[in-house]
Amino acid sequence: MTIDIPPPAIVLVRPQLGENIGKAARAMLNFGLTDLRLVSPRDGWPNPSAGPAASGADIVLRQARLFDSVADAVADCAHVYATTVRKRGVTKPVVRPDEAAAAIRREPGGSAILFGPERSGLETDDVAIARTILTVPINPEFGSLNLAQAVILVAYEWSKGADLVQPSVTDILPPAPQEELDGMIAQLDRMLAEAGYFFPPDRKPTTQRMLRTLFTKPGWNSQEVRTVRGILSTFASPKRR
Amino acid sequence: MTIDIPPPAIVLVRPQLGENIGKAARAMLNFGLTDLRLVSPRDGWPNPSAGPAASGADIVLRQARLFDSVADAVADCAHVYATTVRKRGVTKPVVRPDEAAAAIRREPGGSAILFGPERSGLETDDVAIARTILTVPINPEFGSLNLAQAVILVAYEWSKGADLVQPSVTDILPPAPQEELDGMIAQLDRMLAEAGYFFPPDRKPTTQRMLRTLFTKPGWNSQEVRTVRGILSTFASPKRR
Repeated sequence: MTIDIPPPAIVLVRPQLGENIGKAARAMLNFGLTDLRLVSPRDGWPNPSAGPAASGADIVLRQARLFDSVADAVADCAHVYATTVRKRGVTKPVVRPDEAAAAIRREPGGSAILFGPERSGLETDDVAIARTILTVPINPEFGSLNLAQAVILVAYEWSKGADLVQPSVTDILPPAPQEELDGMIAQLDRMLAEAGYFFPPDRKPTTQRMLRTLFTKPGWNSQEVRTVRGILSTFASPKRR
Repeated sequence: MTIDIPPPAIVLVRPQLGENIGKAARAMLNFGLTDLRLVSPRDGWPNPSAGPAASGADIVLRQARLFDSVADAVADCAHVYATTVRKRGVTKPVVRPDEAAAAIRREPGGSAILFGPERSGLETDDVAIARTILTVPINPEFGSLNLAQAVILVAYEWSKGADLVQPSVTDILPPAPQEELDGMIAQLDRMLAEAGYFFPPDRKPTTQRMLRTLFTKPGWNSQEVRTVRGILSTFASPKRR
């Protein structure tokens, strides 16, 4: 049975600046998240500062839903994560963004991730609603993650399991077949022999082996092998233009 | 033999706003990176807008080094990654941030990660210096990742393995630093120009870029680079024995 697991909702709890709401929306949409929920934003909603900061992620802002309490905002969610930068004296499981993302993708039911106000973070009552604490492991001597940065790391981890276009290496040609490499090495060997490279003569086999290793290390494709041979031919017969 | 693998350098190429340099520094320090290098920042350096945006990551800004060219900035680095948001017609390996981070932690030699200017991203000549393309898989219908966000995702991925202190035990020599590769490429360029290889003349820059890609693909170590230069020198001045 295939269970449809919706992407997580991002819940901004009492966010202060409209600009940060816009930045969070942009961070979300970059990684395919669109369900933004706002709990009592300080300056009301809509907020004219949000749009410019969203850099085009207007659809996320337009669809954003407004709630009076965290409980209302996550009422339809089976899994609630509370994001805190530092672990506090909590008796709930603490997970990293990658662990949270994996769990969200795996477990049936909707998920919500809570992010607190810019200055103070989530309060104890907010955290109490969550089943799990989400903490970004950060430099213990310098923890200064802002709201949009915390959102982007969580969205990024979630996107790893989503169907975003992954960079592919399909436009990379395969290495040239051995016989093409042999042809190239043979041409190099002949030219080096003519140029007096192999000296003393009794070291020639060792040197040739070393050169073969060196020039087969790249894994050049057929086109690259032809280019190298073109270079060698140019040195063998310089063109005076 | 124990080889110490340093954290990667973050190279901002022609950054436009001091504020974004500050944000990048903050993103770096959050995840334990401190080696910031600036190539021709538009508004000069130091930049008074950088400090406030760094939110306390002043040590990264103070230690930041200024360079005139990308080549100078990565001269001491064995592995150079070019960050692009979208894949272009490149014939280099393309990796995600997690793959780049894993490679950086695994492979001997210093690494640098290039980030382009805010508006335009890296230019073709900048990308040509890199051996590998780093691309963040992003919503194909909304790709709007800003500079500091790109930096934080890369730094975050790197930090995941940072706790595992990894003095790796290996006898494999690291790839030659960029300046040795540059020397080899320059020698090849000169010899090819003399031999009339570049024709027609207006295709010379494209051809040179293609050759650079081809000859930096192997990741030859210093000894191998010396061998290749010895071969070139032999062709330039054949010895009649």
